[in-house]
Amino acid sequence: MALPDSEVTACLSEPDPSTSGFYMQQTMMRIKDPKRSLQFYTGVMGMRLLKKFDFPAMKFSLYFMGYAKKEDIPADDSEKIRFCFSQLGTIELTHNWGTESDEEFEYHNGNSDPRGFGHIGICVPDVDAACERFEKHGVSFVKRPNDGKMKGLAFIKDPDGYWIEILNKDNMVKGVKFND
Amino acid sequence: MALPDSEVTACLSEPDPSTSGFYMQQTMMRIKDPKRSLQFYTGVMGMRLLKKFDFPAMKFSLYFMGYAKKEDIPADDSEKIRFCFSQLGTIELTHNWGTESDEEFEYHNGNSDPRGFGHIGICVPDVDAACERFEKHGVSFVKRPNDGKMKGLAFIKDPDGYWIEILNKDNMVKGVKFND
Repeated sequence: MALPDSEVTACLSEPDPSTSGFYMQQTMMRIKDPKRSLQFYTGVMGMRLLKKFDFPAMKFSLYFMGYAKKEDIPADDSEKIRFCFSQLGTIELTHNWGTESDEEFEYHNGNSDPRGFGHIGICVPDVDAACERFEKHGVSFVKRPNDGKMKGLAFIKDPDGYWIEILNKDNMVKGVKFND
Repeated sequence: MALPDSEVTACLSEPDPSTSGFYMQQTMMRIKDPKRSLQFYTGVMGMRLLKKFDFPAMKFSLYFMGYAKKEDIPADDSEKIRFCFSQLGTIELTHNWGTESDEEFEYHNGNSDPRGFGHIGICVPDVDAACERFEKHGVSFVKRPNDGKMKGLAFIKDPDGYWIEILNKDNMVKGVKFND
């Protein structure tokens, strides 16, 4: 059963003063092919590439994606790094070189056994309008806004099959998701 | 090899105007036992519980965790929901009821086969000080700040074994991570 509210409360601590200034900066997911991921996260999801890092010795690259404004992203490389890591809620895409040309290769999205990570969630001003546009881009849907019991929110898949929830805070308040 | 910069650039699109207002709101991870996760994310990581949702018919609960200030979290439930979903970079912990009392049960953190999701990353003002405090709380480390080639950043494990990178934006600029 659900943890009773009294037990929830007993588990909660006030933040230790030393945690002041902590912020949730990134969610890292491995990707098979940066071309299709960059096209998807910029062209479909409207993010920007904040910073790319290559690690030749270890044969991987990192792509940090986020919703920053173009004019806010510094041109200077050090400032760009500082800016990238000052952003809340970025997506860090890890490309291990070579996977893109291995036809059989794919990553695990966490929603079938063995389960764990579930999804990232992106809030949008209008779920229906956003999803109509995603359809035009050929995006795969796990759940369309009017499918199932939870109306007003959707789940799509990114090019690696990771789930992305498409939600809207006003829809959530109306209880479309939480009318159980 | 790394995708050449010219090919990276060719994959990037300017955000479609309809994506204005999109923001990265949540990262969902399934948890075995909310007690230990609530204690960890509030008592160790300094987050607050923004909102809990119970779904009796489907036998699961959601706990949204974030770095909001106490005085900013509304008391009114509708306003609390709206506030929760207005926050960037929250963590959504999903508890499927009953897993907490199944001794054998555990979730998959994505960093062994089958791989996929890697970690979340939390920026802190002082990585060494934060990690010294984590040690006192008995937190498991994947990598301490001075382990390996990448100095000045750490990886710890949450109670389910999910990796959390502990980083600092100024350390990143100094190249501690990216001196390959």
